[in-house]
Amino acid sequence: MSSTFGNYLRVTTFGESHGTSVGAVLDGFPANIRLTEDDIQTQLNRRRPGQSGITTPRSEADTVKILSGVDNGLTLGTPIAFAVNNKDQRPGDYSPSAAIPRPSHADYAYTMKYGISASSGGGRASARETVGRVAAGAAAEIFLRERFGVDIIAFVSSVGSITAPVIDDFGGLTRGIVDKNPVRCPDEKSAAEMERLIKDIKSEGDSTGGVITCVCRDVPAGWGEPVFGKLEALLAQAMMSIPAARGFEIGSGFAAASMRGSEHNDLFIAKNGGIGTKTNRSGGIQGGISNGETIYFRVAFKPTATIGREQETADYQGNMATLKPAGRHDPCVVPRAVPVVESMAALVLGDMALSQARLIAPQ
Amino acid sequence: MSSTFGNYLRVTTFGESHGTSVGAVLDGFPANIRLTEDDIQTQLNRRRPGQSGITTPRSEADTVKILSGVDNGLTLGTPIAFAVNNKDQRPGDYSPSAAIPRPSHADYAYTMKYGISASSGGGRASARETVGRVAAGAAAEIFLRERFGVDIIAFVSSVGSITAPVIDDFGGLTRGIVDKNPVRCPDEKSAAEMERLIKDIKSEGDSTGGVITCVCRDVPAGWGEPVFGKLEALLAQAMMSIPAARGFEIGSGFAAASMRGSEHNDLFIAKNGGIGTKTNRSGGIQGGISNGETIYFRVAFKPTATIGREQETADYQGNMATLKPAGRHDPCVVPRAVPVVESMAALVLGDMALSQARLIAPQ
Amino acid sequence: MSSTFGNYLRVTTFGESHGTSVGAVLDGFPANIRLTEDDIQTQLNRRRPGQSGITTPRSEADTVKILSGVDNGLTLGTPIAFAVNNKDQRPGDYSPSAAIPRPSHADYAYTMKYGISASSGGGRASARETVGRVAAGAAAEIFLRERFGVDIIAFVSSVGSITAPVIDDFGGLTRGIVDKNPVRCPDEKSAAEMERLIKDIKSEGDSTGGVITCVCRDVPAGWGEPVFGKLEALLAQAMMSIPAARGFEIGSGFAAASMRGSEHNDLFIAKNGGIGTKTNRSGGIQGGISNGETIYFRVAFKPTATIGREQETADYQGNMATLKPAGRHDPCVVPRAVPVVESMAALVLGDMALSQARLIAPQ
Amino acid sequence: MSSTFGNYLRVTTFGESHGTSVGAVLDGFPANIRLTEDDIQTQLNRRRPGQSGITTPRSEADTVKILSGVDNGLTLGTPIAFAVNNKDQRPGDYSPSAAIPRPSHADYAYTMKYGISASSGGGRASARETVGRVAAGAAAEIFLRERFGVDIIAFVSSVGSITAPVIDDFGGLTRGIVDKNPVRCPDEKSAAEMERLIKDIKSEGDSTGGVITCVCRDVPAGWGEPVFGKLEALLAQAMMSIPAARGFEIGSGFAAASMRGSEHNDLFIAKNGGIGTKTNRSGGIQGGISNGETIYFRVAFKPTATIGREQETADYQGNMATLKPAGRHDPCVVPRAVPVVESMAALVLGDMALSQARLIAPQ
Repeated sequence: MSSTFGNYLRVTTFGESHGTSVGAVLDGFPANIRLTEDDIQTQLNRRRPGQSGITTPRSEADTVKILSGVDNGLTLGTPIAFAVNNKDQRPGDYSPSAAIPRPSHADYAYTMKYGISASSGGGRASARETVGRVAAGAAAEIFLRERFGVDIIAFVSSVGSITAPVIDDFGGLTRGIVDKNPVRCPDEKSAAEMERLIKDIKSEGDSTGGVITCVCRDVPAGWGEPVFGKLEALLAQAMMSIPAARGFEIGSGFAAASMRGSEHNDLFIAKNGGIGTKTNRSGGIQGGISNGETIYFRVAFKPTATIGREQETADYQGNMATLKPAGRHDPCVVPRAVPVVESMAALVLGDMALSQARLIAPQ
Repeated sequence: MSSTFGNYLRVTTFGESHGTSVGAVLDGFPANIRLTEDDIQTQLNRRRPGQSGITTPRSEADTVKILSGVDNGLTLGTPIAFAVNNKDQRPGDYSPSAAIPRPSHADYAYTMKYGISASSGGGRASARETVGRVAAGAAAEIFLRERFGVDIIAFVSSVGSITAPVIDDFGGLTRGIVDKNPVRCPDEKSAAEMERLIKDIKSEGDSTGGVITCVCRDVPAGWGEPVFGKLEALLAQAMMSIPAARGFEIGSGFAAASMRGSEHNDLFIAKNGGIGTKTNRSGGIQGGISNGETIYFRVAFKPTATIGREQETADYQGNMATLKPAGRHDPCVVPRAVPVVESMAALVLGDMALSQARLIAPQ
Repeated sequence: MSSTFGNYLRVTTFGESHGTSVGAVLDGFPANIRLTEDDIQTQLNRRRPGQSGITTPRSEADTVKILSGVDNGLTLGTPIAFAVNNKDQRPGDYSPSAAIPRPSHADYAYTMKYGISASSGGGRASARETVGRVAAGAAAEIFLRERFGVDIIAFVSSVGSITAPVIDDFGGLTRGIVDKNPVRCPDEKSAAEMERLIKDIKSEGDSTGGVITCVCRDVPAGWGEPVFGKLEALLAQAMMSIPAARGFEIGSGFAAASMRGSEHNDLFIAKNGGIGTKTNRSGGIQGGISNGETIYFRVAFKPTATIGREQETADYQGNMATLKPAGRHDPCVVPRAVPVVESMAALVLGDMALSQARLIAPQ
Repeated sequence: MSSTFGNYLRVTTFGESHGTSVGAVLDGFPANIRLTEDDIQTQLNRRRPGQSGITTPRSEADTVKILSGVDNGLTLGTPIAFAVNNKDQRPGDYSPSAAIPRPSHADYAYTMKYGISASSGGGRASARETVGRVAAGAAAEIFLRERFGVDIIAFVSSVGSITAPVIDDFGGLTRGIVDKNPVRCPDEKSAAEMERLIKDIKSEGDSTGGVITCVCRDVPAGWGEPVFGKLEALLAQAMMSIPAARGFEIGSGFAAASMRGSEHNDLFIAKNGGIGTKTNRSGGIQGGISNGETIYFRVAFKPTATIGREQETADYQGNMATLKPAGRHDPCVVPRAVPVVESMAALVLGDMALSQARLIAPQ
């Protein structure tokens, strides 16, 4: 298992869905930054189940505790440990359905890899693992905002076949706008349709996929470490490590494949006292390095594998069986995945900020 | 700069486009595997410019030399260094156009990051950097094939707006079939159209993007290191680190976003004496771990930034200037990127093979 | 800060002396190994203050809690998080002596590095940080013992100028023998002298250094990763990272510098059905790789910097001041450092075991 | 095999003694630093065999070539590859003595680990591997000197039982002084005795060990990454990874074990406008972080394992045999190990300089 991400700002997450705690240790975080449990709690609350009628009704308070690294409200430069106790601890609660690997879940693959899997719940493969990412990412965001003015906002851009109109200018976008509706889509009309779709699908005992767009504004030029730590490569790794992620594209993305160079190239113009690009098909990254333009990317998520319908599937011995519907899961993961995407983006950018080292110059 | 990829099988690449050499050091490679320069040369030849009328006419022999790690045709378990001398060395050949950053190239971003950039050519951002990846990847493929029977084949699935029909069964695919035409698309009809399109675009002094599909067959179940080293996350990082890559999707990919769980879930059935999945929308990976089914993914590439047309763009001082067309570049990178995609896939799988092997070692 | 050790078996420690908790996350640990909190507690109790009249009277229960990675008493292959709450939490308790950096403590250097240091206690530089190492090391020991029969025993071989006679054959040594006296020196006569010396020094308000010898038996041949991960190099890093460590030597150590090759070389003889060495001046490691002989090394510790005497020293402004004696610290760290040395040895060997296993795995 | 050292400034070495080349790739090196092959050659010449009557008469020109990373005499921020061709290439030259593992060499351990070892020479375990370290270390030194004024000087402080008087003040020491005699001991009287001793031992077909002291002056306070990357821990790893190293001590070292806290503590005094320590028993490092005082440490080396005498030792089958003397090796490695120690110190300090990141802020 590889539970650490980042080379300079390094997060290590821990915890299974039904174990004692989930959390993270964030090492390499700069000293002398104001950080409180409340700062972290805000993002955790956006990730928490039970926020609205379109998310799972499971109630998880998810109260974060900072175990180390902060003294009198200031970071010490030492590792910051976050822990959130699981309300739903069921060690030893062997489920009878453990004999049937759940389709498109991780049960089978984990069992093949480790020869064992968590006795109840999804264990480490559960979306609950993202609690640690969000806690650490929330801290990384504070560092990025305070030292560089970087601003990260993700939102839902499609649910099922409903796709919100493309936003050309991300200038006015805020988290407040995103959170105005439970779907977290800033286009109100699309949001209403998406919400209706999710409710319909839920009532049918089914689930749907969706797409999240993420925008990172005011990232200084120069971040990213070619060739294997290119900014888009690290963002891709970070996003594709989120449960249920199936695709990633930066800037023009897959659409670039059918474009001509003469239309795709971002020409330079004078800008802000220096130069910048007239268009931004590169999505703010060229040669693997931020170029000072807005970074934006999209992440595709598959439909939740847990559905409220019976499934005809084989048990571990190859005998066909009927898997009973399991209750209480999100019919669509993307609304709650929004803060997870933001957190992973913050961890990537925080890592690259430290790598480029502009702001940890002598104080 | 971050020029090392992998944790267990680690490749470090080096070299600029117009420097002395390009190459790689591959560390962690197992001992006692037959490896010759010819094995490596085969894949390098597929990457080499000047192979056909649709690639750049630049002639690069790209003859690889193994500097270490192999003795009497067998690997020693020690680092294997590969070097390919650049024919086109031009240190100190300052181009007058160096004052104008080339649109959608890395010139500007490198200069912002390092305060310097290579005096001629694309330096480290040139596709020439992939020579080291292909050399190392060719070695990784031999290990994977010999020890595990793993088989990796990439091919061009779209060029511009021409998309080959989806292949449902990758069973009969071989590199021989892929290489039958210069586009490297196994669908002959599409290949002919693609070739025509590339020639037209070339004659117009323009370029086009494309998509590569990659298939990895007979990968054992159990490879991949959740949560941050999930197999699809590492593949995404690897692919998005290739010059000009813009998007990555595993299995059902972006299409999953508009599917229902009841249609997307891969039900289990009895298979090969154990169990397997009836469909393979997961693309051979569940929970970040290979499940024994065929792995497949797609990578989108943008159109080549170098075009044979004048471009109106600003110089570093913000003055508008006309950038003259530069000659001799591929109008479409995907045919030559095929072995690069295969090589990066091999490096990821080789890394994961070693990672998993340590856990299943005999007691 | 770099709080992670190991490449394959990776421990990340966290916590300051007077914060909420200290602990560790151990990632890469194999699945299906029996592990309980009691297994861990045993070694933590040996590290705990207040064990005898020669250690600090501070009472720290140091009860460990496993937060993740274990289910029904078996490891899952997922990260194991350990936490120990600090009894002595004093966030915000600014000490008046904070204006005077304590001589030969880390206060000054931390302040120069981070621009801040923990408001009370030694923070991250406190020996309390080793709690996480011991918890993780205890788990590593269980893996090593169960899967390979490896046995690690450290003991005190000198305190101040009292040096126990060299043990030629480590065969009969057990932890029970080591723990027979509070000094943890298996030579009873030396132990009595050492105990008397420590008591005398304590009554004088002073402290003393000492040396720990560590023996690792039944380590299979083949562990260690040249050239930078040579087994002795990783052991040296691990040991020199322990607070107060000043020197490390493997096998013949510094004495080798004045020996001749003809007397130092370990000749081979037939042994246990294969071959082994007649002498063991190499300390069980040749070319950076274990050779199947007993590994042994020594670690020198400086006298505790906290003493019960006034010290004339400058404050941060350069004004001379009198630093008052601070109470309740160990007059000699080596007895309590014994399990820390064992734990770091276990973490190194566990890492190398996993590293080697991947190369020798069956296909 | 683990051939990469460093987290921020990362060197990867490659090459066997009788293969095509030895060398290194140095990644993470800052841009815009003047670097030429001559700068590197100077240190390589000090490492080269055949420099004097007390080193091996093997003649190796060891001419270094920079393959990448430097353009018009300036570093690009990209990986710098160094290669030195081996004059003495003997691939396939199977030695009849390969059936007998050489005592206290790496032959046996490598064979146990990899199931294969280089067919002639010491392969990767040969001191020839250090060529890559010295090339990379020479570059690191230039960075440290130019950007920080750091100055690293190693010298021989003992050979066999001859120990030079301790130098209290390293102020006037230069490499010129160190190189005045072939032993590289700045105390002329001791040097003469050492030289005589080495010649005597050589004529007896024997070898001897020795000790190198290394001094790093003007290292800024704040370098080192607790807890596992403490400066002394990384120096220990670096030094103990050098072939034949057996012991490491920082500052007061093993002598600290028999000292009292009241005599060992380094009291603070006003110094250079700030504060510093009156004594320097800490060796310039406290809490794992440089404190602005001179860093000094000692490394013990064992006698060369290759001797000019017959040795009665077992072959791989356990049959006793007589190993014939092999010719042309250094009777004492320490004079030639001086630049290797300096290089490894430079690689550690360069890594920590980048980690602390004071000077890579925008220029």
